[in-house]
Amino acid sequence: MKINSILSIFAPKDIKFFPLLEETAVVLVQAATLLDELFSSNDKEKIKELCKQIKVEEVKGDKVTGRIFKALNDTFITPFDREDIGTLTDEMDDIIDVINRAAQKVLLFSPQTLPPATAQLAGITKKGAIEIQAAVGELSNVKKSDKVIRLHIKEIKRLEEEADVVYEKGTSSLFQSDIRTVELIKLKEIIQELEKSANKINSVGKVLKTIIVKYA
Amino acid sequence: MKINSILSIFAPKDIKFFPLLEETAVVLVQAATLLDELFSSNDKEKIKELCKQIKVEEVKGDKVTGRIFKALNDTFITPFDREDIGTLTDEMDDIIDVINRAAQKVLLFSPQTLPPATAQLAGITKKGAIEIQAAVGELSNVKKSDKVIRLHIKEIKRLEEEADVVYEKGTSSLFQSDIRTVELIKLKEIIQELEKSANKINSVGKVLKTIIVKYA
Amino acid sequence: MKINSILSIFAPKDIKFFPLLEETAVVLVQAATLLDELFSSNDKEKIKELCKQIKVEEVKGDKVTGRIFKALNDTFITPFDREDIGTLTDEMDDIIDVINRAAQKVLLFSPQTLPPATAQLAGITKKGAIEIQAAVGELSNVKKSDKVIRLHIKEIKRLEEEADVVYEKGTSSLFQSDIRTVELIKLKEIIQELEKSANKINSVGKVLKTIIVKYA
Repeated sequence: MKINSILSIFAPKDIKFFPLLEETAVVLVQAATLLDELFSSNDKEKIKELCKQIKVEEVKGDKVTGRIFKALNDTFITPFDREDIGTLTDEMDDIIDVINRAAQKVLLFSPQTLPPATAQLAGITKKGAIEIQAAVGELSNVKKSDKVIRLHIKEIKRLEEEADVVYEKGTSSLFQSDIRTVELIKLKEIIQELEKSANKINSVGKVLKTIIVKYA
Repeated sequence: MKINSILSIFAPKDIKFFPLLEETAVVLVQAATLLDELFSSNDKEKIKELCKQIKVEEVKGDKVTGRIFKALNDTFITPFDREDIGTLTDEMDDIIDVINRAAQKVLLFSPQTLPPATAQLAGITKKGAIEIQAAVGELSNVKKSDKVIRLHIKEIKRLEEEADVVYEKGTSSLFQSDIRTVELIKLKEIIQELEKSANKINSVGKVLKTIIVKYA
Repeated sequence: MKINSILSIFAPKDIKFFPLLEETAVVLVQAATLLDELFSSNDKEKIKELCKQIKVEEVKGDKVTGRIFKALNDTFITPFDREDIGTLTDEMDDIIDVINRAAQKVLLFSPQTLPPATAQLAGITKKGAIEIQAAVGELSNVKKSDKVIRLHIKEIKRLEEEADVVYEKGTSSLFQSDIRTVELIKLKEIIQELEKSANKINSVGKVLKTIIVKYA
């Protein structure tokens, strides 16, 4: 029995990484969609309910992430370098964590109003998550799909730049407004958390780019 | 001379990793205990003294961490993957850093009063550090002790959830109180730092879990 | 053709890592110099212009960093472990990012005045960047230059301690002053960002130390 035959026994195992990565992307899109809904809402009860649902997604994200790392450990052959799969997983999970933190801060701080920049940033986060999901869905076929994935990465980069502009305008108009200082503190933190989520989405874009460069 | 015999020359060296990891855990428990004392104190002079002592522990932590990374570099055979030892070391050192930052912020900001949430979070950090020390103490015998270590990991997870609740209540009551805004800013930052230390303790829990999964 | 001959084909490629690392260090010094200028300025228009220039450096930093990671991926033989080159690159790029964030916050928040601590911290950042550049310039000759590099690392450590003292004094005098709370919020964030840049410089110092320990 040659080494290749031995290795091929393990090969079928590898296939599972793609479904697991896709599962993580689904959780991410779900969390981002709930976030987008939350920042479009004015109803305190609905916000509370959405926060709970986002927390549920965050726990789901932790679980599927845990399964990926366990699989990385149990498998000899992986479709990409372990490190790349690990980083991609970590970065997606990080976004879910930031989304959860942004949502929880709305609940905790309960600001009187949410300025338009927050809904815009949540919308960008949702769009970015959808781009990530689309790109991750092409990874199992990276050699043929590299052009498609590159387009998603480009759109992710564009979304991050859009988020930068929204964040900047949002923050400076916050400091120029005459709202109460306590409200300003709350909103500044919430906007910063949302800006972080847009930034994190671009971090996933960078990991995807590394993967394209290496394997496409 | 066979390869195993050659390797066995290096083997005794490995044993030193466990004492070094345990030493890091001792520094962590010491720092967390001082932190707990600090947040139970009302005496400005005593707080100043405790801050100094925590800083001493932080420097100690840096030194033992440095020795672990040097040892990782000088040794051929390590009891676990280099990466796992490195991550465990980094995460423990990170907690010590956060503990130090939380303490320094009390000194720097000198808030008029410390709300109960701060003492509670410091207490949880101390309990978590003790759990970490207990788990790290079992690592040299990981195959036999995996059940014991799992219990510590479970308790660490429970402590993090407890910290979450305390943090949430503490923060929302802060924003609902009518303290001066400047005081609110100070306390919000101190509470956030303490919440971070509880979160970091759970990160160590996750690393310990990875080690159990791989080596037990 | 023996394996060594085959490897030697790739060997000349390695040389390119040092120029790329030096290029990153040049961008870092440039960004830090602009930051230092920004915090010594009182002219809003000039500050705006300097922010733009820092942003340009940040984009440059991203590009050269990208080239280093691509080179790491394309090259079989690297002068140091891939991980060490990667970490050094990441840490330098991180400082450039923090410098950019500190600058953008001045623009965004547009505080009425900048306290002396900000100019002092920016000055320390600049000095630290110059030390890093000098140390990185010696890396291609690490076996002969380890003493020189050690001196730079020592100076970086000293600068971080200096930054700590400035940060502490700056922050506590901020909280003791009677400026408007909104101004306090702005300045606290800007000072924290600057303190982070000084800290990040010391992180580069630590990576350099690891490299010395391993390869000198």
